Amino acid sequence: MAYDLWYWPGIQGRGEFVRLALEAAGIAYNDRARVAGEEGLLADLERRGARGPFAPPYLDADGLVIAQVANILLYLGERHRLAPADPAGWLWLNQLQLTIADLVAEVHNIHHPVEMMAYYEEQKPEAARAARQFRAERLPKFLAHFEASVNDAPGDWLTGERWSYGDTSLFQVVEGLRYMFPQRMAALQGDYPGVIRIRDQVAALPGVRAYLRSERRLPFNTDGIFRHYPELDAA
Amino acid sequence: MAYDLWYWPGIQGRGEFVRLALEAAGIAYNDRARVAGEEGLLADLERRGARGPFAPPYLDADGLVIAQVANILLYLGERHRLAPADPAGWLWLNQLQLTIADLVAEVHNIHHPVEMMAYYEEQKPEAARAARQFRAERLPKFLAHFEASVNDAPGDWLTGERWSYGDTSLFQVVEGLRYMFPQRMAALQGDYPGVIRIRDQVAALPGVRAYLRSERRLPFNTDGIFRHYPELDAA
Repeated sequence: MAYDLWYWPGIQGRGEFVRLALEAAGIAYNDRARVAGEEGLLADLERRGARGPFAPPYLDADGLVIAQVANILLYLGERHRLAPADPAGWLWLNQLQLTIADLVAEVHNIHHPVEMMAYYEEQKPEAARAARQFRAERLPKFLAHFEASVNDAPGDWLTGERWSYGDTSLFQVVEGLRYMFPQRMAALQGDYPGVIRIRDQVAALPGVRAYLRSERRLPFNTDGIFRHYPELDAA
Repeated sequence: MAYDLWYWPGIQGRGEFVRLALEAAGIAYNDRARVAGEEGLLADLERRGARGPFAPPYLDADGLVIAQVANILLYLGERHRLAPADPAGWLWLNQLQLTIADLVAEVHNIHHPVEMMAYYEEQKPEAARAARQFRAERLPKFLAHFEASVNDAPGDWLTGERWSYGDTSLFQVVEGLRYMFPQRMAALQGDYPGVIRIRDQVAALPGVRAYLRSERRLPFNTDGIFRHYPELDAA
């Protein structure tokens, strides 16, 4: 039975980390809100009630409802062998995914530094300041951590000789950062060849190649998590 | 063999979620940086190398190094039965813990909205704006989610008839919010009796009672995650 994935229909956002793992593995899923729309998503969320998700994305696995990206990937990783089976391996992968989640939260905070529920246009000077520090300090720190993780990996991929959901997530981080900060990433990425190699390997996976060419892959836009505002970028 | 826990020595911070679970369960651990100091922590972090933690806290479990609070608790929960054993149960608990992690990140962002690496004093007007929205919109939304989770729980605790690390984490959320926003929490908390009941039940656990009276429990302060700046609070 195909999974039901529920996420905001117009953006890659956090849902994309789940989509990429499913697509790379060729696992069947229905991207429900792409058909039901935002109203359908909100109605479904309401219907889930008390112990339902705090926010999308969430996966309905034949009645088992799982929210939070890292939690969904932990479930899929174990069930479909998209993660190492040994505790040291899957704990390390979960740790890496949570660090990616931290990066994603920091990235969102750049364009919404003072009011998460207001528009970017209402906080542009603050966003410029947040972007400066992210570009100068946080971005290299995160990339250096991922680079070290790749370089110390036990095989061609982050967790061994086979791709895991950590690799597809790192792919999305690179793609998102390149879209959001083209100048900064062009200046920096030569320092992180291992990260770029993982990105390229993921892009070449048959499932990912087919996905990226399909209409299922939404383009990046300025409603998502990674947003390109030229005034926030600089080499 | 006792666990080694490494975290910034002067604050509760994110490490406190791990400490509370260990203390409630009576699990032996060495809070290493309380002896080694911040320099000792930084030296240890350096020594861990490439696949080491991105940031404290991390737990050294006889050579297995685990970072990220939710990941550490997942490990401890399974190993020491501080979590349900069934997938639906532990996945839901992990999801809840990740939502608590989101709240913690948003709370930190209130006093550091535009520059994570700079001082609060350099971003006070921005912090005031962030605090207003958090108090008005985000705080009730998080508390309502936790309240619904408690009310729909299958027993006296979040995951059944025995406390889990979700309960000790919710205790810490309430304590932190009461310290950070005494006026706002006094105005709001009557609406969330289930959350307060869990807080009170956790406070009454023998291990937690002993811990809270000990010197191991650091006081809240304005270096941690939850910070009391009177100008950021209002009923």
